[in-house]
Amino acid sequence: MGMVGGGFGAFIGDAHRRASRICNDYELVGGVFDVDYEKSKQFAKAEGIPADRCYISVEAMIQAELALPQSERMEVVSIVTPNALHYPFAKNLLHAGFHLICEKPMTMTVEEALDLEKLVTGKKLTFALTHTYTGYPMIRQMRDLIASGVLGTIQRIDAQYYQGWINSIIHGTESRITGVWRLDPKHAGVSSCMGDIGVHAFNLIEYTTGLEVKEVLADLSTVKEDVQLDLDGTVLVRFGGKLKGVIRASQVCGGEENCITLAVYGAKASLKWAQENPNYLYMLSDSEPTKIYKPAHGYNGKLAEASHTMPAGHPEGIYEALANIYKGAAKSIRAEMYDAGEFPTVHDGVRGMKFIHSVVDSNKSGNIWVKV
Amino acid sequence: MGMVGGGFGAFIGDAHRRASRICNDYELVGGVFDVDYEKSKQFAKAEGIPADRCYISVEAMIQAELALPQSERMEVVSIVTPNALHYPFAKNLLHAGFHLICEKPMTMTVEEALDLEKLVTGKKLTFALTHTYTGYPMIRQMRDLIASGVLGTIQRIDAQYYQGWINSIIHGTESRITGVWRLDPKHAGVSSCMGDIGVHAFNLIEYTTGLEVKEVLADLSTVKEDVQLDLDGTVLVRFGGKLKGVIRASQVCGGEENCITLAVYGAKASLKWAQENPNYLYMLSDSEPTKIYKPAHGYNGKLAEASHTMPAGHPEGIYEALANIYKGAAKSIRAEMYDAGEFPTVHDGVRGMKFIHSVVDSNKSGNIWVKV
Amino acid sequence: MGMVGGGFGAFIGDAHRRASRICNDYELVGGVFDVDYEKSKQFAKAEGIPADRCYISVEAMIQAELALPQSERMEVVSIVTPNALHYPFAKNLLHAGFHLICEKPMTMTVEEALDLEKLVTGKKLTFALTHTYTGYPMIRQMRDLIASGVLGTIQRIDAQYYQGWINSIIHGTESRITGVWRLDPKHAGVSSCMGDIGVHAFNLIEYTTGLEVKEVLADLSTVKEDVQLDLDGTVLVRFGGKLKGVIRASQVCGGEENCITLAVYGAKASLKWAQENPNYLYMLSDSEPTKIYKPAHGYNGKLAEASHTMPAGHPEGIYEALANIYKGAAKSIRAEMYDAGEFPTVHDGVRGMKFIHSVVDSNKSGNIWVKV
Amino acid sequence: MGMVGGGFGAFIGDAHRRASRICNDYELVGGVFDVDYEKSKQFAKAEGIPADRCYISVEAMIQAELALPQSERMEVVSIVTPNALHYPFAKNLLHAGFHLICEKPMTMTVEEALDLEKLVTGKKLTFALTHTYTGYPMIRQMRDLIASGVLGTIQRIDAQYYQGWINSIIHGTESRITGVWRLDPKHAGVSSCMGDIGVHAFNLIEYTTGLEVKEVLADLSTVKEDVQLDLDGTVLVRFGGKLKGVIRASQVCGGEENCITLAVYGAKASLKWAQENPNYLYMLSDSEPTKIYKPAHGYNGKLAEASHTMPAGHPEGIYEALANIYKGAAKSIRAEMYDAGEFPTVHDGVRGMKFIHSVVDSNKSGNIWVKV
Repeated sequence: MGMVGGGFGAFIGDAHRRASRICNDYELVGGVFDVDYEKSKQFAKAEGIPADRCYISVEAMIQAELALPQSERMEVVSIVTPNALHYPFAKNLLHAGFHLICEKPMTMTVEEALDLEKLVTGKKLTFALTHTYTGYPMIRQMRDLIASGVLGTIQRIDAQYYQGWINSIIHGTESRITGVWRLDPKHAGVSSCMGDIGVHAFNLIEYTTGLEVKEVLADLSTVKEDVQLDLDGTVLVRFGGKLKGVIRASQVCGGEENCITLAVYGAKASLKWAQENPNYLYMLSDSEPTKIYKPAHGYNGKLAEASHTMPAGHPEGIYEALANIYKGAAKSIRAEMYDAGEFPTVHDGVRGMKFIHSVVDSNKSGNIWVKV
Repeated sequence: MGMVGGGFGAFIGDAHRRASRICNDYELVGGVFDVDYEKSKQFAKAEGIPADRCYISVEAMIQAELALPQSERMEVVSIVTPNALHYPFAKNLLHAGFHLICEKPMTMTVEEALDLEKLVTGKKLTFALTHTYTGYPMIRQMRDLIASGVLGTIQRIDAQYYQGWINSIIHGTESRITGVWRLDPKHAGVSSCMGDIGVHAFNLIEYTTGLEVKEVLADLSTVKEDVQLDLDGTVLVRFGGKLKGVIRASQVCGGEENCITLAVYGAKASLKWAQENPNYLYMLSDSEPTKIYKPAHGYNGKLAEASHTMPAGHPEGIYEALANIYKGAAKSIRAEMYDAGEFPTVHDGVRGMKFIHSVVDSNKSGNIWVKV
Repeated sequence: MGMVGGGFGAFIGDAHRRASRICNDYELVGGVFDVDYEKSKQFAKAEGIPADRCYISVEAMIQAELALPQSERMEVVSIVTPNALHYPFAKNLLHAGFHLICEKPMTMTVEEALDLEKLVTGKKLTFALTHTYTGYPMIRQMRDLIASGVLGTIQRIDAQYYQGWINSIIHGTESRITGVWRLDPKHAGVSSCMGDIGVHAFNLIEYTTGLEVKEVLADLSTVKEDVQLDLDGTVLVRFGGKLKGVIRASQVCGGEENCITLAVYGAKASLKWAQENPNYLYMLSDSEPTKIYKPAHGYNGKLAEASHTMPAGHPEGIYEALANIYKGAAKSIRAEMYDAGEFPTVHDGVRGMKFIHSVVDSNKSGNIWVKV
Repeated sequence: MGMVGGGFGAFIGDAHRRASRICNDYELVGGVFDVDYEKSKQFAKAEGIPADRCYISVEAMIQAELALPQSERMEVVSIVTPNALHYPFAKNLLHAGFHLICEKPMTMTVEEALDLEKLVTGKKLTFALTHTYTGYPMIRQMRDLIASGVLGTIQRIDAQYYQGWINSIIHGTESRITGVWRLDPKHAGVSSCMGDIGVHAFNLIEYTTGLEVKEVLADLSTVKEDVQLDLDGTVLVRFGGKLKGVIRASQVCGGEENCITLAVYGAKASLKWAQENPNYLYMLSDSEPTKIYKPAHGYNGKLAEASHTMPAGHPEGIYEALANIYKGAAKSIRAEMYDAGEFPTVHDGVRGMKFIHSVVDSNKSGNIWVKV
C-alpha cells in the first residue's frame, strides 16, 4: 500500500495506517506524505519507510512504482489529502491501474465523481471510499435487519451529525480561521458542514436502508458573517412515495463531540443507533420490550459478526470500523468473494457529491426542493 | 375547582385531578364530566361529588355556581375536553368570571386564541394552559440557566417530539380510525401531529429560551392516503438574526413512547434534556466535562428547587410536573407573588395557535417560509 | 385516615399525605403531627384539619376517635415518626382496632416485630409497611417475571443501596451530628445504614424473588471514630442450596443520591433494575438481545400494569409508587380482593427486623455467619 | 517480538498481535504458536512468518534466537498460553535475557510470582503483565484524579466483574466442560472466577487508588456440584484504617457480557467507571453537578491524553487499551522515559497471585479474614 497525504499532524492519515495494520492485509511501502518534500521524507523515515519510496509527487510515485516488478509494486494507494486533491490524484492513479482507498468527500464536483465512477468501472479496479461509520458492526446489523423486512414499511428517517469543534475556532482569532482548510472553499469545496459531516449522515441512511434520497430542501447557516461556508443546516429529505425524513448537521453544537444518530421508523418496528456508543443497536416496537442488539452474538447477521473479533462486552471502536472497510477492500482487490456492504464504493461517492451539491443549490435558491 | 370533560376513560382528566390533589390547593366540587349526562352523573358519584353539582351543561353550571355565595362557588374551572370545545367553554367561563386551567391546544383558530387573550387580560383572570412539560424541575432549571447567559449566543435549537401510538391505529381497522377524535378535523382542528405534540416542542423552545420563533417552513405528511391530518412532519424554524433550528414531530415513530428532546446550543455551552428521563439535564461545553444537573441540589435555581419536593435521587414524574403548574396557577388565583414561568399563560396559547397555523399554511403552500 | 408524626419539616410525612391523595382512597382527618402540641396545632391548621382532631397524644387520639360514631372515626392511621416510636404507637393503635400504615424499620427489636405480627394476625387488621420501592411498576413486573420461572434456577443475587447524604454531616460540625436522629441509637435503633437503607435492599430481594435470606455475614463500618452506628457495610447472604448473593449499603458514598440497584441472575435469563430510572427493567440472556421492559405495555403482568396510570413514556415516580402501596392497603381495609404483593405486610416487617439484627450480630461477633 | 501460544482459535493471541500492530513498535518475527508443531507451522505460514523462526519448543526458540546477531534477535516475547505454562516459559526466557509481555494471572503460585519478580529485578528486564483494562484512557484519568487528592479521604471502594459466558457451558454437555481449560485446576490454577476475572477487579482498585488491599474475607461458589473451581464469589476487602470495600465477581451472571465496574467513594467526591462504555468517567459530588470526563480533552491528565489518539467522540476500545500497554512496554524496553502506570509490572503480578491465593484460603477456611 502507498499513501498520499497523512504526514505529521494529520490524524486521518494515522487512522488509515492503524486501520490497515489492524486489518493485517496491507503493508505501507511508500507514498507522498506531505506537499513539503523535506517533511515528507522525515515522516517516511519516522515510519520506517525506505527513502527511495518516499516520492516528491504523485506523478513521480506512479512512474517509479510502475517501473517496479509487479510483485514489489504498490497494489493499492490510500488518498488522505484535503478534499480538493482527491480527484486529480485519484484520476491519475486509476489511469495507472492502482486500486484506491479514498477519504470522503470523494471529489469537489458531481462531474468529477461521475468521471471517477466511469474510470473505476471501466478498469475494473477496487475503489473504497472511507465512510468509516459503515464499518461498525451494529450499522451493518441495522442494514441486515432492514433488508430482512422486519421493520415493515419505513415511515420516517431521521439522521443527525452534530459536532462542536469549529465553535472554538470561529469564536477565536483570525489566524485560526485562516488555518483551517475546511472553511476555505478552495480546499474544502462548496460546503463545510454538509460536505464534511452531513454527507456521512446521508450515507448512513442510504447504506442502512438501501433507499435513495430523491429530493432535498435545505436551510444552511454560516453562523458568522465572515465565514464563507455552511457550518450548520437542516435538510428535509424525500424518498419517493409518502416517505419523508430529515438530516440535521452542525459544526457549532458546542460541547458535542461526534454525535451521529440514526433512526429508521417502520410500520412494524424501528431501529436507533448512536455513534458514541456504537455497539448498541436499539429495536423499538409497539408491542414488545425494546431490544438491544450488541456485537458478538449468534442473533446477529453474518456481516455484523464478521465485523467484530473480540468476545461480547469487549468494546471495539472507530479504528476497528475503519479496519473492517480496509478488510472489505482487500478482499475485493484479491478478487475474493465479498458481500455488498463490506466497503463503500465509488458509487457511494457519486451519491454523496450529488447530495452535497443539491443541498447547497437548494439553500442558494431560497430553500426549494432540488432533485438529488 | 370545577371540571369540564374528563369523565370515565379520559386519562387527561384523571391526570388533572391527580395533579390538583398532589398540589393540595384545589378541591374538585363539581363539573360537567361527559356529554352524556347519565355517564357524567355516574362519574360524579364515583368521585364522591354531590349530585347537585354535576351539571347537564357548562351553561347550567355557570348559572348555578354564580347563584352560590362566593365562598362556596367554584373559583376555577379545569377544561379537559377535546380541542374544539376549549374555546366556546373558555369564553363563557371567562365572561362569567371564572379562572381557568385549560388543556392545549387552547383553541381551533388564532382568532379565537386572541379573543381569549383579550378576555383574560381585560378581566384580570388567571388562565393556565397545561403545557405540562414546563412543570418539570429540569426544564425550569434550563430556562434559568439560559436566562443567566451561561450559554453565550445561542447558535442552534433542536426540538423533537416522537410518538408511535397512532401507528397501530392507522394500520389497524377502520373502526379504530373513526374512533380517534384526534384524526378528525372537526374535533382536532387543522392538525393532528403539529397541533397535538409539535406545539409542545415549540412551547418548550420558547419557554426555555425566552426567544420567539419568527418564521417556519414545514413539510408534513399524512403517511396514509385516507388520513386527513398530518401525522408526521419537520419544521425549519428561524428566530431572527443568524439563529436557526428545527422542530421534528411524529406520531408514527413505532415503538417511541413519548420521546421529547430539547437541545439548545450556545457559543459557550449547550443544554440537552429528554422527557423520558426528566430529572437529568446535561450541560455540554468544549472545555469542561459534561455536567448533569439533577433536582434537589443547591446548585439549581429557585424555581427548579421549588418544583421538586423529595430529596435527591427520588424521581418525581409527570404528575408532579402538572401539579407544579396547578400550584403556580393557585398562587396567581390567590394573588400571591409568583415568578414568570410558574405556569404557561394565555399568551403561550396564542403563540401555540400561531405556530400550528403557520406550519399548516407553509405545508399547504408548497413548503415556503411563513411568518408566525 | 389519621397520622402520627409528619409535621412541619418532615419530608416523609408529606410524602405519605401526597401518596394518600394521589391514591384518592383516603382523607386525612386528624392526628398527632408533632411532639410539640403547639407546632402540631399550627400544622393541622395549615393542612385544613379541624382543631378538635389535632390531638395532644396518641392515647388522647385513640380515646377521642373511639368515642366517635364508626362512620366518622378514623379507619386507618399512618405512623411516620422516628423509628423508636413505631412500636409503642402501633401496638396501642392495633389494640384499639385501627388499621395501620407504618414507616420502616417497623420496630427496634425482633421481639417487638413478632409482637406486632401476632396482634395484626389475631385482630385481622390491615398493616402496610411502606417499603415504598415495592410500589414501582417495574419491581412488581420483576416479581411477576421471576415467579413465572423465566429466569430458570437463580444463581446469584446482588442488591445495592448507596447514598451520600450523611457524608456532609459526618464531616461537618458537631452540632449537625447531634441534630440527626438517625445516628443516635436511642432513636434509630441498633443500626443506621443497615436499618435505614440496607433493609430496603433486603426487602427488594425477598419481594421480587420470593426467596428467604437464610444466613448473613456482615462487615460494617462507622467510618468515623465518634460515630456510634454503622454508616456503611457489605453483607454476604446465603439462601440455602448453592445460591449466594450480596447486599451492599452505604450512606457515605459522596455524590450518590438514592442509588438502589437490584440484579437477579438466573440460569436462563437475568433481570436488572435501578431506582433512579425506575421505569426501565432490563432482561439479559446469553442468546437474545437485552430487553427493556417499561410500564404501560400489554406485555407486562397485571399488577405492574395496575401500578401505572399514564400512557407509556410519561414517567411516574416515587410518589406514585407510594400511592400504589396506599391503594393496596385501601383494598385490604375495604376487604376487597387484592393480590399478594400489593403492599408490604407486617411479616415483611418481621423479616426486616431479623435481617437488621442478624447483620449487626454478625458484625459484632467478628464477621461470622448468623442465621436470619 | 516473538510469541508463545496464540495459534489458530486463540482470541487472546490475536488480540496481542493486533495491539502490537496498532502500537506500531513491534514486529512479530517468530514463536511457538501451538503445542502441535504442525499446527504451529501452519499458523506461522498464514501470518507470513518465516518457517525457520517457527520453533518446536520454547527451549529451541531460545537457543536459536540467542544464536542470531543481536540486531536480528527477538527483543521481547509475548506469552499468551494457558495459565499453567506462564511461569516455566517466563522463567526460561528471562534467564535468557528476553523482555516479556505476559498474560495474567502471571503464575500458578505466589512463590513462582516472587521468583519471577526477583529475576526481572535482578536482570533489569522489562516485564509487562497485560491487565488490559489499565490501558483505557479513563482508567488512567481515574488514577490521575485520585492521586491529585480531589476525592479527599477514600471511604468505600466497590469493584465488580460479572460475566455470563460459563453459564451456557456448565448447563451444557459434559464434553463442553472437559473442553474448557479454565475449569481444570491443572491448567487454570486454584481458581477460575477469582483467578481469571476477580483479579482484574482487584488490579483496577490497586492501579487507580495506589492503595494496597491488606485483608480479604471471601465466600466463593462452584454453583454446580461437579465443578471443581469457583465460578462466583464475593470478597470483603480491607485497606487498613477504617477503609473497607468489596470485590464481586461471577462467571454465571447469564447475559452479562464483560461487566466490569469500579467505584471509589471519597469524602469530597467520588469516581465511577464501567468497562462496557469505557470512555465515560463519572465524578460525583454532593455539591456540584455530576461530571462526565471523556478522552481527548484538555482537562484530562497527561497519561490519559497520551492514551487516546482520535479526536473526542471517536470511540476507541479494548484493542487500543492493550496497544497502550504494549506502547508503555516498548518505551521501557528502549529505555525511554515513561511514567509509572504505563504498563502493569511483575509486581502487579505478585500482588495478583497473593490476592487469588488469600481469597481461596479464606473461602476454604470457612470465610475468615486472611492477609494478602
